[in-house]
Amino acid sequence: MKVIGIADTTFSRIDMGAVAIDELRKTGTGFRVERVTVPGVKDLPVACKKLFADKNCDIVIALGMPGGEEIDKMCAHEASTGLIQVQLMVDRHIIEVFVHENEAKNEKELAWLAESRTREHAKNAFQVLFKPEKLIRMAGTGQRQGFKDVGPIE
Amino acid sequence: MKVIGIADTTFSRIDMGAVAIDELRKTGTGFRVERVTVPGVKDLPVACKKLFADKNCDIVIALGMPGGEEIDKMCAHEASTGLIQVQLMVDRHIIEVFVHENEAKNEKELAWLAESRTREHAKNAFQVLFKPEKLIRMAGTGQRQGFKDVGPIE
Amino acid sequence: MKVIGIADTTFSRIDMGAVAIDELRKTGTGFRVERVTVPGVKDLPVACKKLFADKNCDIVIALGMPGGEEIDKMCAHEASTGLIQVQLMVDRHIIEVFVHENEAKNEKELAWLAESRTREHAKNAFQVLFKPEKLIRMAGTGQRQGFKDVGPIE
Amino acid sequence: MKVIGIADTTFSRIDMGAVAIDELRKTGTGFRVERVTVPGVKDLPVACKKLFADKNCDIVIALGMPGGEEIDKMCAHEASTGLIQVQLMVDRHIIEVFVHENEAKNEKELAWLAESRTREHAKNAFQVLFKPEKLIRMAGTGQRQGFKDVGPIE
Amino acid sequence: MKVIGIADTTFSRIDMGAVAIDELRKTGTGFRVERVTVPGVKDLPVACKKLFADKNCDIVIALGMPGGEEIDKMCAHEASTGLIQVQLMVDRHIIEVFVHENEAKNEKELAWLAESRTREHAKNAFQVLFKPEKLIRMAGTGQRQGFKDVGPIE
Repeated sequence: MKVIGIADTTFSRIDMGAVAIDELRKTGTGFRVERVTVPGVKDLPVACKKLFADKNCDIVIALGMPGGEEIDKMCAHEASTGLIQVQLMVDRHIIEVFVHENEAKNEKELAWLAESRTREHAKNAFQVLFKPEKLIRMAGTGQRQGFKDVGPIE
Repeated sequence: MKVIGIADTTFSRIDMGAVAIDELRKTGTGFRVERVTVPGVKDLPVACKKLFADKNCDIVIALGMPGGEEIDKMCAHEASTGLIQVQLMVDRHIIEVFVHENEAKNEKELAWLAESRTREHAKNAFQVLFKPEKLIRMAGTGQRQGFKDVGPIE
Repeated sequence: MKVIGIADTTFSRIDMGAVAIDELRKTGTGFRVERVTVPGVKDLPVACKKLFADKNCDIVIALGMPGGEEIDKMCAHEASTGLIQVQLMVDRHIIEVFVHENEAKNEKELAWLAESRTREHAKNAFQVLFKPEKLIRMAGTGQRQGFKDVGPIE
Repeated sequence: MKVIGIADTTFSRIDMGAVAIDELRKTGTGFRVERVTVPGVKDLPVACKKLFADKNCDIVIALGMPGGEEIDKMCAHEASTGLIQVQLMVDRHIIEVFVHENEAKNEKELAWLAESRTREHAKNAFQVLFKPEKLIRMAGTGQRQGFKDVGPIE
Repeated sequence: MKVIGIADTTFSRIDMGAVAIDELRKTGTGFRVERVTVPGVKDLPVACKKLFADKNCDIVIALGMPGGEEIDKMCAHEASTGLIQVQLMVDRHIIEVFVHENEAKNEKELAWLAESRTREHAKNAFQVLFKPEKLIRMAGTGQRQGFKDVGPIE
């Protein structure tokens, strides 16, 4: 039985953690979920580290919705840098799912984008953990998460 | 008995450390406080590291008030990056409370914002330490610290 | 028998991993290939780390095609920073092959650039591993990968 | 007997190291000084690390005068990031004293600013080492080094 | 007998490694040289790390010529960050000699600048290794490498 960690935030305007868990359960079996919620994206790196250290997770999905201001971009950058450091410390993947508020043109699209991207990345996390050979077959195919795939250049 | 560390600066124009301690005491019991004050935000990472290493803190609140200039933004970025590194070294949370001078339109609002954000994050720190399950119930609810919550997208 | 790792992405619009393997096979012998594909460039650092740790690679080629937006530049920066950290943790080279979408003026040139740069860097990786003295003889000769070499200043 | 390290540069246009040592000697006793000078600010992190490792310093003052161009800002950022990393590796403080050439409107003011900021930070270093409780009493008082204190918001 | 490492690139348009070795030999004795050449500046950090680990270098000179575009600036930043990390891992100095293509107004000046800066920094490396007390005497004297020294503020 594998363990998949879910780390999300109270800052997000969508319950991304719940969406990720729902999608994982639709995608397959052979795992259980450990979940933690923190205030914002800068709290995610240590939250993920603790999911690996304390809960023995095999992979973690880190979900956040950074604001659209310059300072929010910097917070997201610091969080992403930390998430990569965690992965290198534990030799396990964290699938980062960040949806920036200014990627969408209104609240409705933002909610759709957050849900859609979360579901696609939950599937990615499942495949990284259980079916890595399937990802090799998708190499270079222009996959996108949330918005439409752009596809390979023919 | 848990230990909550408080690290703040002489650079700040509000005694954020005192506010944080006051709010923690109003929020609950079961902890004692260790406090340190350093010149500026770039001194906070090692100050926090020492609160964990020397004072055995279970969590630390790091408080600062970066200036509004480009160079101050860079200082805050360097400090934030260091604070994340510390957390990954000790597997414990640091709740960062930074209030940028240019977030407020005058001194009065700046003082209000610094106090308000500090109080809300002191509560967050308490919950991360004592009631993490409560934060899961608040996932995706659009919490903000200082300014008004934006709330979830319905 | 040396081991060369290949890490690429499903985000890329060209199967850069397959191109790299093809070029390596044309360039020489004395190695076998280990390949992994991940969703995007930010997943590459830990993928490379695992190629070294789990598959005992002697060198890794990390291939990605970051988008042309500001946020994609930041992702590429975070990935590159992580790739350098991995190298310092294992004392082995990762040859990074990133092709930014906005380096080319249309899809056709982008495909050409991605293939051309991948092939030239596959040769570089081979030389770093098997013929480092040849690279010393090329020091300061203005080599470029993909676009035309600019050559030395006479 | 404590050991205070002084690391400065040949790039600076003021002998900041000498000023720091002079101010330390005026401020108190109970320490001896170890000094090193390197070419530029990017050489300071390892110089400080060696002051801790080889000379057993209890605290280090790192002094530099970055130029006013964009590239100099990046050098200063890289140096600052490294200085924070050193502190986290050794659990001891480095007091960074950087004076950017474009902070002053002419050479005379630049010299004044460099000396003034160095003296104030030398006092800070002394207090961090010998009188940390005094800094807690100054929390939130709007201290500045070099230019005039802005003071607390009443 | 000390060991001085030289790491440079095939990307550079001047054989900076050869210039550095020539200058070192003119400057003094008591050392031997270990040289490695890599494709670009982002390959320098691990190359330097291996010069310390595998070749037992006491100091390394890392030479590169980043391009003038925004993306090249980011590459140089990533390389510099890595070079600082290496130094902190091994407690030895790397003297970074980067010449940005857009620092010079034409090819001729670029070649002159690259050679001149390399020679001055080769002397710096020699002094850091053999005559550190001489650098203390030059503290605050406004040294520049390549272009003319600006000198101390009187």
